[in-house]
Amino acid sequence: MDLCGIAESIRPLDEDMMSLARRRQDSLTKPRGSLGRLEDISVQLAGIYRTGRPVIAGKAIFTMAGDHGVTKEGISAYPSDVTAQMVLNFASGGAAINVLGRHAGADVITVDMGVAGENNWPDSIVRSRIRGGTGNLARENAMTLEQAGTAVANGIELARSASSKGYNLIGIGDMGIGNTTSASAITAVVTGQPVRSVTGLGTGIDSEGFDRKIATIAHAIEFHRPDPEDPLDLLSKVGGLEIAGMAGVILGAASMDIPVVLDGFISGSSALIAAALAPNSREYMIASHLSVENGHGAILKHIGLEPLLDMRMRLGEGTGAALAMMIIEGACKVLDEMATFEEAGVSDRE
Amino acid sequence: MDLCGIAESIRPLDEDMMSLARRRQDSLTKPRGSLGRLEDISVQLAGIYRTGRPVIAGKAIFTMAGDHGVTKEGISAYPSDVTAQMVLNFASGGAAINVLGRHAGADVITVDMGVAGENNWPDSIVRSRIRGGTGNLARENAMTLEQAGTAVANGIELARSASSKGYNLIGIGDMGIGNTTSASAITAVVTGQPVRSVTGLGTGIDSEGFDRKIATIAHAIEFHRPDPEDPLDLLSKVGGLEIAGMAGVILGAASMDIPVVLDGFISGSSALIAAALAPNSREYMIASHLSVENGHGAILKHIGLEPLLDMRMRLGEGTGAALAMMIIEGACKVLDEMATFEEAGVSDRE
Repeated sequence: MDLCGIAESIRPLDEDMMSLARRRQDSLTKPRGSLGRLEDISVQLAGIYRTGRPVIAGKAIFTMAGDHGVTKEGISAYPSDVTAQMVLNFASGGAAINVLGRHAGADVITVDMGVAGENNWPDSIVRSRIRGGTGNLARENAMTLEQAGTAVANGIELARSASSKGYNLIGIGDMGIGNTTSASAITAVVTGQPVRSVTGLGTGIDSEGFDRKIATIAHAIEFHRPDPEDPLDLLSKVGGLEIAGMAGVILGAASMDIPVVLDGFISGSSALIAAALAPNSREYMIASHLSVENGHGAILKHIGLEPLLDMRMRLGEGTGAALAMMIIEGACKVLDEMATFEEAGVSDRE
Repeated sequence: MDLCGIAESIRPLDEDMMSLARRRQDSLTKPRGSLGRLEDISVQLAGIYRTGRPVIAGKAIFTMAGDHGVTKEGISAYPSDVTAQMVLNFASGGAAINVLGRHAGADVITVDMGVAGENNWPDSIVRSRIRGGTGNLARENAMTLEQAGTAVANGIELARSASSKGYNLIGIGDMGIGNTTSASAITAVVTGQPVRSVTGLGTGIDSEGFDRKIATIAHAIEFHRPDPEDPLDLLSKVGGLEIAGMAGVILGAASMDIPVVLDGFISGSSALIAAALAPNSREYMIASHLSVENGHGAILKHIGLEPLLDMRMRLGEGTGAALAMMIIEGACKVLDEMATFEEAGVSDRE
């Protein structure tokens, strides 16, 4: 599956199966519509899986890591080394996404999309390294056009391979010191919002650093003039390797009729890229939560998504996706396992 | 444990343990505060359990059922018989709360607090029947003062018995055709809000029925003049047997240092009663979700709770509590299982 054919390979949802699921919801022993968004999710998954009774068979979260040359501009509260250190933390199971992945029954698949330095990863880390971090987007392209394409294509292949292993609910998350700067640049360009309104504190920068971050992003957009209509151009100029990889996972999953659970702001920026590359992919997305990071709301509005959770989280890694997966699985079980009025001998409304 | 001593038996949370938990959160491999409300929940549970690392040992949801004489006024979309039919549905595992309880790993304990008719329940239904439904609150007291006290006391005992069986996270939910009418009356009296602003469509009544419902509630409050400062007087005049029972479960759980996960509007009205009987009990409450039923927001504001979820649900039974339990358990696991910066060899912020 190359990048050129991916958009055509993503089908619209199956409306007939969605109607079938809605009719079954209406026959279950509860007032019609009384489970609100749980019912809506089950209907969306019916359309994606093309069955009236969707069942979650296996859950995976791709936590994709990459470094960012723009950290040289002093726009992050943590040093760049933390990206690699956290990848090792993922491998040993001590990070938040490991805990929440285990809790949700989801396998966490950590992918090196472009972590800086010479890293001797344990076998559990998937190697998909395009280069050792991006170029400093304040002064140069983040990556070449070819590298952007390869990173997206690698993501597509990872998702399709997960599908062949039986996973049918895929979450995405990120690790990359400096990546909120890249995500804000993408968000500003795609949504047309002012940089200041889509830039936040990331891991917790101070106010001086925050001003520097905004100036850096504004300068980068002015300097590169990325084409808002050309997602690969945008990725190559101000993107991130893990952002490109996550966009690929969305596309690959959608091409295999698998719903994708977005995480927060960074994965949201990858969703903007995926939606631009393949508009149908939007119907396969589920927004797990609203991040407190500025700009996430603008992303969700632009794509047309409503988050399931609002927990004032801003960690990334796929942590919001893990929480939402439990709700999504519950939604499917309600549709599949509840008794109908007829089966239970319960009187329907008068 | 009688009703008189219950308020004194509920202690304030342990501030030292909450500080300890907050310090541990700050040492874990994530930007400080980046898990938002997940962190807050873990700290609340540290205060309730009086330990720096709270662990959920067992989860139970009390789904309490009772009938309402006020259904004679034509204020519900479903016939009264549905209460008993749904209790049987709970017993056979086909209702939404059974599905979501199983999904969340919570045992569902169905309690007959006052279901109308001669019912030959299976053994799994807990018998705590005070009377066969309430009197019609539009024309007479819902129950006697003594019955109200007994219903609350039974709830207290049920929660304390659950504690002795090892459950340390308790959810509450309701089943009772007509009970939104009772809950709206309680909410209007306790919060001082106008009846219209705290009355909703319940299971889905039409607009004519809705006007009748509002008129019925307003008339009942005018007729009975319940004392907003006297929760048992209020219960006896316009309450419900399942509402009284749930209030008791809250109090019994809090008295055993167990957090209580509220469900939607009906369980919210029981929380108003519990908070009035024992103000400290508020600190043991967790609001699972915001119901679309009018008036739930006023309840949560009055008690000072912020809901975890907003899924446009309005089913009751404990379904919102079941979903929230998964998040609460995840919050505790994050605090307990994540690696610290030191353990993982991850650099802290610069």
